[in-house]
Amino acid sequence: MSSSVRIALDVMGGDHGADVVLPGAEIALIRHPDIRFLLFGDEKIINAQLAARPRLAAASQVFHTDVVVRMDDKPSQALRRGRRVSSMWRAIDVVRTGEADCAVSAGNTGALMAMAKFQLRPLDGIQRAAIAAVVLGMKTPLVALLNIGTEEVKGNEHVKLAAQMLRDANLPIQFEGFVEGDDISAGTVDVVVTDGFSGNIALKSAEGAARLVAYYLQTALKRSWISMLGAAIASGAFKVLRAKMDPRTSNGGVFLGLNGTVVKSHGGTDGLGFASAIDLAIEMTRQDMTNRIAADIAGVAAILSRTAPAVEPQAEAPVGP
Amino acid sequence: MSSSVRIALDVMGGDHGADVVLPGAEIALIRHPDIRFLLFGDEKIINAQLAARPRLAAASQVFHTDVVVRMDDKPSQALRRGRRVSSMWRAIDVVRTGEADCAVSAGNTGALMAMAKFQLRPLDGIQRAAIAAVVLGMKTPLVALLNIGTEEVKGNEHVKLAAQMLRDANLPIQFEGFVEGDDISAGTVDVVVTDGFSGNIALKSAEGAARLVAYYLQTALKRSWISMLGAAIASGAFKVLRAKMDPRTSNGGVFLGLNGTVVKSHGGTDGLGFASAIDLAIEMTRQDMTNRIAADIAGVAAILSRTAPAVEPQAEAPVGP
Repeated sequence: MSSSVRIALDVMGGDHGADVVLPGAEIALIRHPDIRFLLFGDEKIINAQLAARPRLAAASQVFHTDVVVRMDDKPSQALRRGRRVSSMWRAIDVVRTGEADCAVSAGNTGALMAMAKFQLRPLDGIQRAAIAAVVLGMKTPLVALLNIGTEEVKGNEHVKLAAQMLRDANLPIQFEGFVEGDDISAGTVDVVVTDGFSGNIALKSAEGAARLVAYYLQTALKRSWISMLGAAIASGAFKVLRAKMDPRTSNGGVFLGLNGTVVKSHGGTDGLGFASAIDLAIEMTRQDMTNRIAADIAGVAAILSRTAPAVEPQAEAPVGP
Repeated sequence: MSSSVRIALDVMGGDHGADVVLPGAEIALIRHPDIRFLLFGDEKIINAQLAARPRLAAASQVFHTDVVVRMDDKPSQALRRGRRVSSMWRAIDVVRTGEADCAVSAGNTGALMAMAKFQLRPLDGIQRAAIAAVVLGMKTPLVALLNIGTEEVKGNEHVKLAAQMLRDANLPIQFEGFVEGDDISAGTVDVVVTDGFSGNIALKSAEGAARLVAYYLQTALKRSWISMLGAAIASGAFKVLRAKMDPRTSNGGVFLGLNGTVVKSHGGTDGLGFASAIDLAIEMTRQDMTNRIAADIAGVAAILSRTAPAVEPQAEAPVGP
């Protein structure tokens, strides 16, 4: 693989489209000067922005598209309306043909998953792709299933069966059984596996709670001049806290289990956040993750086929962040 | 109903049993001097504690039980082992016979639900009981279903069907459709309805995130003497924040839809938290909620039967707090 990673961008995706995608691309280009972009979207909008960003323009090729997949399109609608002609479809298509190494979109998660699955096809042994945050550089990560209790008897049949299979399978992971919602923030394990519905609810509930605590803190600090004075003196600490909690530094979920790398950015992120999603796509490409996952899946499938009948993983529904 | 509410307590329930239940009962007794307790559990343990709490002893009757439902018993095991002889069973049984007005337990949620359903029976028109935080004093509460997006197309079939039925049914609530995980903390609506699995995960994820932010804040404030000075000056604000976030002030989930009032306390709470669960049971009793819910259910069942075939609500699994 060339070291110059070629990244296809769905410029029209997300809540803010080009206004976030192109500034994000520019930030990523500063970090990785040798990357190249294939930009899909309305060429008038793109070219107007590139005029003010000569460095990004020099690293990019623009491909005009007329159709935009809307954030509230059903996956089936998006496939019907957007097939071959939408910015989202086209960005994935160049990954399929090999003209790009990876694609990044902040668009409609369900539509992106449907198109990516349709165009790139699942790897052998995979029925549904998953969306994941990526943990790189660990030999035997601690893995657990999200459940409503840590005891073996807790939970619905899906998670109990999955746990049983993982216990029996002896995979090259350290399987820790079940964890609960509060273990996500506690960092009890490296990887928490969950279905898309529960995962979305877990992430957004956590996000909401963190925002509420921040609001309570601000309100409490403003209620007297003496606490405002204290807060001013401790302002360095609050700056550290803000940086620590900034979700833009870890934006991006990668679709696992497809023949090609597609990264989903949070739809409402800003340029800095979108740049993080591009970083992730670059890292996945440089680490040759698609081929490594294909090889791992082949090994895992062999192990699992010895322990239980195939079950369908529950990972189709969109997972936040 | 007599104004002197009679409360049955499962003294052996929860992570700490009598060490939390009896101090909690004593706090509740200070708040409501006319309440009376029926205490179920190991009489040696109970009497030893009551010797040091004469006021509580005077307001209590002790009933010895030998069997304790364990926190990791399956509901079916608990019913087998604990039927008629466990502190949990006996506390519910006196609600059934009318000797007590309500029961409170910090024990195993699944077992408590199974026993409560078995002994008290669901109200007419209810297939499964739900566990709820209670919103009193609202004429037309804003109600929404927890989902992974607010658009009508989002989510699994259960939530979509439930939303359709609620939209069509014209109930005496203001139905707001779907909310997402972060709306729970944002307080977008008064009541968020969810299945037990997702609800447990949402609450625990939020709890974990709040704890993490608090930890980050403490760490950030300790990193230099100047921020420690600022924190000391602003200490009043941090005290306010701590009180605001104290989960013990709103402990207790009530089982809705049964012929009798049973309140589930958080298993790991302390005396103050257990007292909040007792407060809730008292409030439910004084407001005659069981009869009011029965009357409402009869009305709602009539409305729903006109709009769609009965579906089974998904509320059996334990919901935190």
